[in-house]
Amino acid sequence: MKRINYAMLTDFYELTMANAYFLENRMNDVAYFDLFFRNVPDNGGYAIFAGLQTIIEYIEELHFEQEDIEFLASKKVLDPRFLDYLKTFHFQGDLNSFLEGSIVFPNEPILTVKANVIEAQLIETFLLQAVNHESLIATKATRMKLAAKGKVILEMGARRSHGASSSYKGARAAYIGGVDGTSNVLADQLYGVPSGGTMAHSFIQLFDTEYDAFVAYATHYPNNCTFLVDTYDTLHSGVPNAIKVIQEVLIPQNAKNYGIRIDSGDLTYLAKKARSLLDQAGLIDCQIVISNSLDERLIETLLSQGAPIDYFGVGERLITAKSDPVFGCVYKLVAVETNQGIIPKIKISDNLEKITTPHYKNVYRIYDSSNHAEADLVAVHDEIFDTTKPLTIFDPQATWKTKTFTDYHLVQMHQPIYQGGTLVYDLPRLSEIREFTKSQLKTLWEEVRRFDNPHRYYVDLTDRLWRIKQSLIQK
Amino acid sequence: MKRINYAMLTDFYELTMANAYFLENRMNDVAYFDLFFRNVPDNGGYAIFAGLQTIIEYIEELHFEQEDIEFLASKKVLDPRFLDYLKTFHFQGDLNSFLEGSIVFPNEPILTVKANVIEAQLIETFLLQAVNHESLIATKATRMKLAAKGKVILEMGARRSHGASSSYKGARAAYIGGVDGTSNVLADQLYGVPSGGTMAHSFIQLFDTEYDAFVAYATHYPNNCTFLVDTYDTLHSGVPNAIKVIQEVLIPQNAKNYGIRIDSGDLTYLAKKARSLLDQAGLIDCQIVISNSLDERLIETLLSQGAPIDYFGVGERLITAKSDPVFGCVYKLVAVETNQGIIPKIKISDNLEKITTPHYKNVYRIYDSSNHAEADLVAVHDEIFDTTKPLTIFDPQATWKTKTFTDYHLVQMHQPIYQGGTLVYDLPRLSEIREFTKSQLKTLWEEVRRFDNPHRYYVDLTDRLWRIKQSLIQK
Repeated sequence: MKRINYAMLTDFYELTMANAYFLENRMNDVAYFDLFFRNVPDNGGYAIFAGLQTIIEYIEELHFEQEDIEFLASKKVLDPRFLDYLKTFHFQGDLNSFLEGSIVFPNEPILTVKANVIEAQLIETFLLQAVNHESLIATKATRMKLAAKGKVILEMGARRSHGASSSYKGARAAYIGGVDGTSNVLADQLYGVPSGGTMAHSFIQLFDTEYDAFVAYATHYPNNCTFLVDTYDTLHSGVPNAIKVIQEVLIPQNAKNYGIRIDSGDLTYLAKKARSLLDQAGLIDCQIVISNSLDERLIETLLSQGAPIDYFGVGERLITAKSDPVFGCVYKLVAVETNQGIIPKIKISDNLEKITTPHYKNVYRIYDSSNHAEADLVAVHDEIFDTTKPLTIFDPQATWKTKTFTDYHLVQMHQPIYQGGTLVYDLPRLSEIREFTKSQLKTLWEEVRRFDNPHRYYVDLTDRLWRIKQSLIQK
Repeated sequence: MKRINYAMLTDFYELTMANAYFLENRMNDVAYFDLFFRNVPDNGGYAIFAGLQTIIEYIEELHFEQEDIEFLASKKVLDPRFLDYLKTFHFQGDLNSFLEGSIVFPNEPILTVKANVIEAQLIETFLLQAVNHESLIATKATRMKLAAKGKVILEMGARRSHGASSSYKGARAAYIGGVDGTSNVLADQLYGVPSGGTMAHSFIQLFDTEYDAFVAYATHYPNNCTFLVDTYDTLHSGVPNAIKVIQEVLIPQNAKNYGIRIDSGDLTYLAKKARSLLDQAGLIDCQIVISNSLDERLIETLLSQGAPIDYFGVGERLITAKSDPVFGCVYKLVAVETNQGIIPKIKISDNLEKITTPHYKNVYRIYDSSNHAEADLVAVHDEIFDTTKPLTIFDPQATWKTKTFTDYHLVQMHQPIYQGGTLVYDLPRLSEIREFTKSQLKTLWEEVRRFDNPHRYYVDLTDRLWRIKQSLIQK
C-alpha cells in the first residue's frame, strides 16, 4: 500500500495561503475559525455531529515528512523557507467542540479552532471532510432507526460506499446513529462496530440445490442461521426449503437464532406470505430480515402496511445518504487576536443567511423542566448566565419574536478538546457515543424529529453577540 | 494511524460462506464471477469503468496477518482450521477486465474473476466498492466535461467527499473522466492529478482590506493569481480591487496567468458584469473562474446563457455524484468448473432484467467504418468471429429485432489482468488512461452521450450464448 499522510489531504489553496501568511511574517497571528453548516440534509429538523475521533487521530499524527516536503517543493509554488517551516509543523492550537454524537443545528459552531493562521488554515480541508461525511451518515442512520420503530437495522452498504474509508467510517457513523450492526469486518476490527452476516445468492448457486445449500449452512452455523430465500422462487422454493432445514437440522439441536432474508420482490407482500408459511409450520420464532434499497421512507411504508419484519438490512441508501448525499459544513474565520484582544470578523454576503456570526463563541442548550431541548443559544465565549433568573431569547432574524424561560437549565455544548496543542479530552468508547446520541434524541420534541416539514428548532444569539454582529454589518 | 488491512474490508458473509466452502471440502472448486451493473447513473447512456488500479493494489497486498486472524477468531464464528488456511491465503486466480477508462454499458461483464470459490468470494466486497465508487465519479466527470464544451474544469470537492479515500480516489477518477485538475494535494502526490489553488475568503478577511489581501497575494504569486472577488461585494469591491492590483502589481511584471473567481450570487449575471468591467479596463486576458454547487446541468445552462466563463470549479456535486450517488455494480456467479469442464450458472428472478447471463464470457465492441461504436456483443469466452463475413446481432429481449453489419470491425474488450495469481498487465500512466477515455468518448454517437433520454446502446448476446441462457431458464 502506498504511504498516505493525511497532512497532504488538503486543498492546495490552504498551502498557498499559509505560504503567503508566512512570507508576510504573520505566522504567529492567532485566528479563530468556526465549523458549521447551514442546512440539514433531507430537510430534516436536526443533525448528528460525528467525526471527532477522526479529527483527533488526524491532529495527533499531523506532520509533514521529508518526502512530502520534497513533493511540495516540486510544485515550484511555495517558498523554500516556508517548506522548511513545515518540517517541524504540528498543531499547537485550541479546539473546542460539541461532543461526538451530539445533536446539532444549522448556524451554530460545531467546533471552533483557535490557532496561528497557518495551523488553523492547513487543517481546514481534513476537518471539513471528516465532519461532513460522518455527520451525514450518522444523521441518516438516526432517521432510519426512527422509522424502524425499535426494529433492528443492519448496515450492509460497503460495496456501494464511496471508497474504502467511506465504508468503515460510514459504518462507525451509522452505529453512532443507532444502527445495530454492520456487515463490514474492518469497521468491527477498527472501531468495534458489531459485524455479522450469513450468505449471498452465490452460496446457494454453488450447491446442486437450494435445499443442499441450506443444509450445509445450517450444519456449520446452527446458532446464527439466516437463509436467503429469494435465489429461485421465494414462496415456492426458498421459504419451504428454509422451513424444511430449520425443522430437520436446527430444531433437533435446539437452535434458537434463525431467520430468513428476502432481498427482492414486493417486500410487504413477500414478508406477509412468508410469515404465514412460517407460522403455519410452527416456526413463530423464525425472524424475517428484509433488504433491497431500503431507506427511512420505505421502512416507514413497509411497517405502516403491516409487513411483519424483524430486521432491516440497509445498504446503498444509508452508506451514500442517497437522497441527499452532501452535508454542507463550512469553516469560516470569525475572529483574530491582536494585542488589543479578540477582534471579531464577519463575512458579508448578498444572501442574508450566508452572513457569518462573528467572534469567539460557545453554545448553550436550553432545556425545560421535562428535559426537552427548547432552543440553542450562541454566546460570546466568556458570557455568564444567571439561571436563577428568567431567560429571554429572540429570533436573530426577527427580533420582535421572543420567548422567555423561567423553569429551565442550560448545558454548555462546547468542550475543550485541544489546549495549546495538547489533547485534553478522553474520547469515550463507541458504544458510549451511541448511547449518548440515543439519549440526546429523546430530548428532542417529536415535532423536530418529524421527516416532513419538521418544527424549526431555534438557534438564537445572545443580546451581546447579536449587537456585535449588527455593528459589524453596519460597518 | 491505525494499521488498516484492506483484506478485512469485506462483508462478514464472505467469510461465513468461505468458511462453509472450506468445511464442505470445496476450497478447490473453481468459480467464475462477473462484475456488472444494470443501470447507468443519472439515466445516462454510458458509463466509464474506473477502479482497476485500486483493485490491482488490493490484490497485490491481499493477505491476512496474525492480528487479523486473531480478531476473526475472537468472533467465534469461523472454524480454527479455516483460520489456519487464511494465514497463507492470497489470490491465485485469473482476472479479465475492460481496461480502466473504458466506456461500459449495462448488463455486460466489466470484469470476470476465475478462482477457487474462497478467493473469488472473499474479494467481492472490495472489488465492488472500488469499481462502484470510481466508475461513478469518472462517469459524472465526463458529463461535466461534455457540458463544459472544452472549458477547463477543476475538481475541488475534497471537503464534501465521503471520507478521505473518497476524496483522493475520487479526484483520480474525475481526472480520468476529463476534469483538468484538482485542489487535492494528496491526489497529486499519490496519482499525479495536477493540483492547484489560490485563496479562500478567510485570506481576504485576515487583511485589513480586500485590496491589501490582493496585493499580498499578487506579490507572492505573480504567475498564478486568481483573486476571489465575492468576499464583500463582487462588482463594487472585489472586481475593482482585482483590476487595480492586476494593473499595479501584475502588469508591470508582465504576468500573464491571472483571473478572478466568483463563488456566490447569480453566476451568469456576475460573470457578464465582471467580464465587462475587466474588458473596459483592458484586461481581456483576465480569466473568469466560477464555482458554487456546479454540475453538468448548471454548467450547460450558464454556457447557454452566454456566461463568459473560462474555468469551472466543481465541488460537492462531482465528488459525491450528488444527483445519483450510487453506481450499482453487482458480482454474480456465472459458472463453475468441474471435471466435465465449465458449467454455466444462472440466477433466476421474477424481474426479467435481473436474470443473470451465465457462462465464462468475453465482450466485443462492434465499430462501423467511421469508427463509431455500434453495439457490444457478449460472447462465450472461446467464440471466434469471422469478420470477413457480415455479422447479425439481435436484441436478446426481442429477438426479432436484428441488425446486420457488413463493413465493421470487432475489438475484444476483456484483457487478462491476472493469470494464476500473477499480474500480467502493466497499468498505464494516469494521463494515458485519461487520454484513452477521451478517445473512447469520441467513438460514441452524440445521441448516446445526450443527457436526456439518450439513445440506448445495445448490448447483445451471441446466438450461442443466448441459447445457453434460454436453456438454463427453461430448466
